[in-house]
Amino acid sequence: MMKLSRFWLPRNQLASKFLPVKNSNIKETSWFSNYSSRLGISTARSDSIKHGNYSGKTYADFCIFKGKASLAVSPVLPTFSRLDSGSSKVDRRGVVMLKFMPAIGQRKYDSEKKQLFALSATEIGCLISLGPAESCEFFHDPSMKSSLEGQVQKTLSVSPLTNGEGYFFNLAVMNSVQKTNDRFSVPVTKAEFAVMRAAFSFVLPYIMGWDQVIKPKLESIGVERPMQREMRADPDFEWGR
Amino acid sequence: MMKLSRFWLPRNQLASKFLPVKNSNIKETSWFSNYSSRLGISTARSDSIKHGNYSGKTYADFCIFKGKASLAVSPVLPTFSRLDSGSSKVDRRGVVMLKFMPAIGQRKYDSEKKQLFALSATEIGCLISLGPAESCEFFHDPSMKSSLEGQVQKTLSVSPLTNGEGYFFNLAVMNSVQKTNDRFSVPVTKAEFAVMRAAFSFVLPYIMGWDQVIKPKLESIGVERPMQREMRADPDFEWGR
Amino acid sequence: MMKLSRFWLPRNQLASKFLPVKNSNIKETSWFSNYSSRLGISTARSDSIKHGNYSGKTYADFCIFKGKASLAVSPVLPTFSRLDSGSSKVDRRGVVMLKFMPAIGQRKYDSEKKQLFALSATEIGCLISLGPAESCEFFHDPSMKSSLEGQVQKTLSVSPLTNGEGYFFNLAVMNSVQKTNDRFSVPVTKAEFAVMRAAFSFVLPYIMGWDQVIKPKLESIGVERPMQREMRADPDFEWGR
Amino acid sequence: MMKLSRFWLPRNQLASKFLPVKNSNIKETSWFSNYSSRLGISTARSDSIKHGNYSGKTYADFCIFKGKASLAVSPVLPTFSRLDSGSSKVDRRGVVMLKFMPAIGQRKYDSEKKQLFALSATEIGCLISLGPAESCEFFHDPSMKSSLEGQVQKTLSVSPLTNGEGYFFNLAVMNSVQKTNDRFSVPVTKAEFAVMRAAFSFVLPYIMGWDQVIKPKLESIGVERPMQREMRADPDFEWGR
Repeated sequence: MMKLSRFWLPRNQLASKFLPVKNSNIKETSWFSNYSSRLGISTARSDSIKHGNYSGKTYADFCIFKGKASLAVSPVLPTFSRLDSGSSKVDRRGVVMLKFMPAIGQRKYDSEKKQLFALSATEIGCLISLGPAESCEFFHDPSMKSSLEGQVQKTLSVSPLTNGEGYFFNLAVMNSVQKTNDRFSVPVTKAEFAVMRAAFSFVLPYIMGWDQVIKPKLESIGVERPMQREMRADPDFEWGR
Repeated sequence: MMKLSRFWLPRNQLASKFLPVKNSNIKETSWFSNYSSRLGISTARSDSIKHGNYSGKTYADFCIFKGKASLAVSPVLPTFSRLDSGSSKVDRRGVVMLKFMPAIGQRKYDSEKKQLFALSATEIGCLISLGPAESCEFFHDPSMKSSLEGQVQKTLSVSPLTNGEGYFFNLAVMNSVQKTNDRFSVPVTKAEFAVMRAAFSFVLPYIMGWDQVIKPKLESIGVERPMQREMRADPDFEWGR
Repeated sequence: MMKLSRFWLPRNQLASKFLPVKNSNIKETSWFSNYSSRLGISTARSDSIKHGNYSGKTYADFCIFKGKASLAVSPVLPTFSRLDSGSSKVDRRGVVMLKFMPAIGQRKYDSEKKQLFALSATEIGCLISLGPAESCEFFHDPSMKSSLEGQVQKTLSVSPLTNGEGYFFNLAVMNSVQKTNDRFSVPVTKAEFAVMRAAFSFVLPYIMGWDQVIKPKLESIGVERPMQREMRADPDFEWGR
Repeated sequence: MMKLSRFWLPRNQLASKFLPVKNSNIKETSWFSNYSSRLGISTARSDSIKHGNYSGKTYADFCIFKGKASLAVSPVLPTFSRLDSGSSKVDRRGVVMLKFMPAIGQRKYDSEKKQLFALSATEIGCLISLGPAESCEFFHDPSMKSSLEGQVQKTLSVSPLTNGEGYFFNLAVMNSVQKTNDRFSVPVTKAEFAVMRAAFSFVLPYIMGWDQVIKPKLESIGVERPMQREMRADPDFEWGR
């Protein structure tokens, strides 16, 4: 009836990668050590952010630090372009960006060797509806339908952990020009995946741009109308549009 | 224990129908080819939007392009009318609009022959609570309760795919005056349906107008009150309203 | 594998009770007739709203009209009182208000005989976690712990429909002074309950006042800090508060 | 087929602890008495809030009052620090704060002996994905990785009630310096846990800071662009970033 599972979770998984480690609560037990989360300091140069052109942007990656690699997750909003009519429409769709970094020591990760994978709305839909024993695989080629098709190929596969309590997030990036083949493997616990699922479900409508569609317009509040209207054929806007 | 499913999903399902195809990642495998998503360019005239009267509106359809037809989904907010008291109430309820277009070639869809179907709150409730093996059917008649009842009839049926991993969205529009009978069939994968389910759950309260009801009013913050109030019979507003 | 269920749902369940019926799509089939939704015109006097003191309020009841009674559902926000410190705290908690009205003819409901039942956060939690074969019952006494305790008693019981596809919402109001005993019974379909579940889950944090707690404060954005801080014992606010 | 469960829930669980008890609806039946919620007045001094420095803050704890102890739950937002670039990033991550207080009489709880436990995003993920028969345990040490490690240890364990309809929330705080060992045990009903689950899922993205990431920036609406763009290799930002 009762399935006991113990977690010693790091207290500050959301702390910035620039901050020194503080208050780490990790206790590694034998069966858990392969999957245990670790706090890490990446080798990212703060210059790249300090002198960047990101005014007003907010960084709040959800980070999962494990023994061989880390996985950072964050949403990227769509961009819109304005039409002559004054309306807007989605130009570049939003994504959830996955950032993998290999470990280069105890709690250190190499941001120079990071690899990105941008999840589309439908790929997010696949992940949030994934059953506990199900797997899925996404394949991206930046040059598809161009003459460079096949030069770089990225494959993200998500498959259940052997204990059934979470998923492996495996990314393979094959570059046939540079003759490189980067592989990352991050075990994501059931609890961490639940955070992803809740956060992905939250951002999905924003990534789709639906928050902009439902933003109340001033015009949606009509002028006062008589309350007792005549009975008349009122063709529904399903037909009249 | 493990059920492997592979997806080669299009990268830019949310890209505008006016943009040329870019970075398509579709790999059609035999068992998947009937359901595979395709990017498409519709025949919609940009004029109809450019010279329209949609100032301030944002377009962000969630589009599913398949072999025989496409399905675009987007929310439509309710409209409100003001009462003499200064309050507002829902005038025309919101919907989720489904737009079907038939394919007229490789990745081309005919917007001239589009058909709309407006899902009410309860119909949305039916879809988001649909079990994996369940079906449902909605029937709309624009002229119901009028002398024209039965001239045009729309039927949307949603039924499981044969592999159990998604649903067919079938729309039939029968016009007994024009003697036409349009039929659309779009296979929606489990991942695409998960996007719908999350997006529909997100917009449902907005379609119902509840976001306006819970919008904090300035008056809801009362004046300062003494913290130690007398014990007194405080009839709950369940009775006092 | 496939369980077919057909719905002929009314198109404008959210339309105001003051508006004449339009575009009703109801087709009553034998097995469905007892549960079928009906559009209705209540006997509510518009005066009571027109001359009320509800400036700025928005009305957007979710209404379920059935053969013997109707059920209208809407959220009521909490009120806050200000403390001397400038902070605020919940004064009167929010609820989801259920309003029952008996039918007094074909699609007419008697608002004079309406009865209210205000669901608390925990009662909402009970409903949104209710399994398909589970029941629950809530008991309210407006005069509890006073000398009038027991004079008026309200009991809301929610129990599965015999076909398992929804719930009966039964309200009994017993007034031992007026010697009255009002009873309402509204069959709520699975689709209608899914709307309730989604809408209740949406409003629950607002009813609890948590939307005010998480409203970003200007102060939460601190001044610029040096990025390379000294390693030091930083007692977590779990202990320091 | 039908599992009947009866609830007599307190009407004002969200009422402030400073307010006198009103309209309590508790009926204790034999099987339910050990778990029944009780309204309580804590011994918290209002001074501590009145003269505090919490301008603009809103208090809206979700409180569960039981026989031996009470549990109050509320979200705490992350703080952000500004970078030289004008961007912001999460400084101190947000949490959901659990506050336990021991009972010191009929509906009285001792705030002097309160103990806090701050749930991280991943710990929240663990709770909201907890199956009905599952348990979990979190371990916090405020001085971990310092010379004081092990002096104070907090353990929160969440395990199913014997009737399977909820969870025990047990907190143990061991202080090896003060030689104290505080223990709290609060039975949380299925309905109360459903409130927690919904409220935790709601606040999780805010605790992670994702609401700030997806806050629409003015810059995200680009200038007008020609609608008919040239077909060109458009490297996805997955590669270009």
